[in-house]
Amino acid sequence: MRPTIAEIREAAKRIHPHVHRTPVFTCQSLNEQVGAEIFLKCENLQKVGAFKFRGACNAVFSLSAAEAAHGVVAHSSGNHAQALALAARLRGIPAYIVMPANAPAVKRAAVAGYGGQITFCEPTLAARERVQEELAASTGACVVPPYNDLRVIAGQGTATLELLDELPDLQVVMAPVGGGGLLSGTAIAATDSSAVIRVVGVEPEQADDAYRSLAAGRIVPSSDPQTIADGLRASLGDLTFPIIQARVEQIVTVSEAAIVAAMRFVWERAKLVIEPSAAVPLAALFERRIDLSGLRVGVIVSGGNLDLDRLPWQQT
Amino acid sequence: MRPTIAEIREAAKRIHPHVHRTPVFTCQSLNEQVGAEIFLKCENLQKVGAFKFRGACNAVFSLSAAEAAHGVVAHSSGNHAQALALAARLRGIPAYIVMPANAPAVKRAAVAGYGGQITFCEPTLAARERVQEELAASTGACVVPPYNDLRVIAGQGTATLELLDELPDLQVVMAPVGGGGLLSGTAIAATDSSAVIRVVGVEPEQADDAYRSLAAGRIVPSSDPQTIADGLRASLGDLTFPIIQARVEQIVTVSEAAIVAAMRFVWERAKLVIEPSAAVPLAALFERRIDLSGLRVGVIVSGGNLDLDRLPWQQT
Repeated sequence: MRPTIAEIREAAKRIHPHVHRTPVFTCQSLNEQVGAEIFLKCENLQKVGAFKFRGACNAVFSLSAAEAAHGVVAHSSGNHAQALALAARLRGIPAYIVMPANAPAVKRAAVAGYGGQITFCEPTLAARERVQEELAASTGACVVPPYNDLRVIAGQGTATLELLDELPDLQVVMAPVGGGGLLSGTAIAATDSSAVIRVVGVEPEQADDAYRSLAAGRIVPSSDPQTIADGLRASLGDLTFPIIQARVEQIVTVSEAAIVAAMRFVWERAKLVIEPSAAVPLAALFERRIDLSGLRVGVIVSGGNLDLDRLPWQQT
Repeated sequence: MRPTIAEIREAAKRIHPHVHRTPVFTCQSLNEQVGAEIFLKCENLQKVGAFKFRGACNAVFSLSAAEAAHGVVAHSSGNHAQALALAARLRGIPAYIVMPANAPAVKRAAVAGYGGQITFCEPTLAARERVQEELAASTGACVVPPYNDLRVIAGQGTATLELLDELPDLQVVMAPVGGGGLLSGTAIAATDSSAVIRVVGVEPEQADDAYRSLAAGRIVPSSDPQTIADGLRASLGDLTFPIIQARVEQIVTVSEAAIVAAMRFVWERAKLVIEPSAAVPLAALFERRIDLSGLRVGVIVSGGNLDLDRLPWQQT
């Protein structure tokens, strides 16, 4: 099954000049709160503020010179768009980003700030895919999907490679799951590095397609899920599903209230700005949805991008 | 003049088992914004979320066994109270904290959470000092002042010792100034480590007693200053003033709007939760109140404690 850990190691070498080796933080009050020894792999401190830069960077720098010359294209209004725009700028090629016309101004500005060329479209998946195809056809740009892509999955796995390089004796690794790119890369890096490590995916119970898909043994996508963890609204793809099925011990779901509580705790006690999606694995520990008492647990803190004018504890 | 760098080095050894060696962060967008190379010494990631723990810890562990047996006492509703409570708990002695009866519940809970024994009083300086004296007399506890104290100043200087150990070629070090404990310790550590390093203190223009005191050549205290940087409302003391006079190149003042803008920038781009007081040195660069173009500048990020329910950009 691909990608393999060898491809994750190649990705790590390829993106090394461009990505931050993010720090791993501990927080005593967090450990006391959840009853386990937590190691936060701080991808909120990654470039563009999210792990997404790893996958985008690996995809962009995997292209041959001939392929790269025409640029890259993606439809996204989130962290993938920013990540791809910056990766393309670093390679000196254009990035065409398709965004719904109703995307928040702050996200449009962020993509433009990294040099992305934005094309607006109707806010439907069909429109986004159609405009992306048109752009790919007219410019010759390569499509870089946000998660269902071997190069992207391998890139996301490099965070766990770094984490286990520093802490080879971790007993569990937890990551949030949306489309499954991060969790797939995490699972390959972890289970191929250790015969005993457990990999746990966590998602909002209001966007529980991974949980339902594993239970059903086939992809059961969510339809327009409503969750504050906006990075986790996507459903598993045909590349990420089998990897997760084979290598992830279980998918745990969490409530919206626990996501907000875990996020606020990290802001208050660890002094780290993390986005709701990044708080989802910790929420599983806060809610005791899984018992990891006394274990050494690595948690991929996926990102730190959110609108500071609209914090969740002020909207209740 | 005391304390000397030797005393700061002793303090560093004394508190080493108890304090975090905080990380130093860089942030490319911050560098671009201010036109200098900024190194953030992250004391917001220190225990209790502020540099204050260094000074309190040095004071508490400097006590002889006989002195320590009766505990320590201070009047404070801020970071010093939490810092002293935790330092005392680590030494296994009582901490008596005098707080005004109108102190926010969150601050009372934080001090109590670290094991501090709180005595409430009228919200005036006279009442706070009287109750502190009464407690010291009745319990035999040692008073640990928040800044005007040689042990506390030496403890605060250890942050800069660590910073310059990592980055000996810094050209400037900046710190906020309230009562002057942090700036004094910073200045001694910096100027005794390097013959050429510049030390700059920054304070809110609405609490500009240090600026006015240096201009007047004598302590000119502020009276009830109003600034969002609540950690910087104190005025210089008779120990901190002469150190700052001798070793600090200049005091720069900043507007309230620049403090909020700098704080928000650090949250958004560096993903670090910092309190308003910690943003004050960066505000001087944002406002171009001092020209440090192209220089390598260390900034002591003093703390990260604030009420997440009342963020400044939501009160305008």
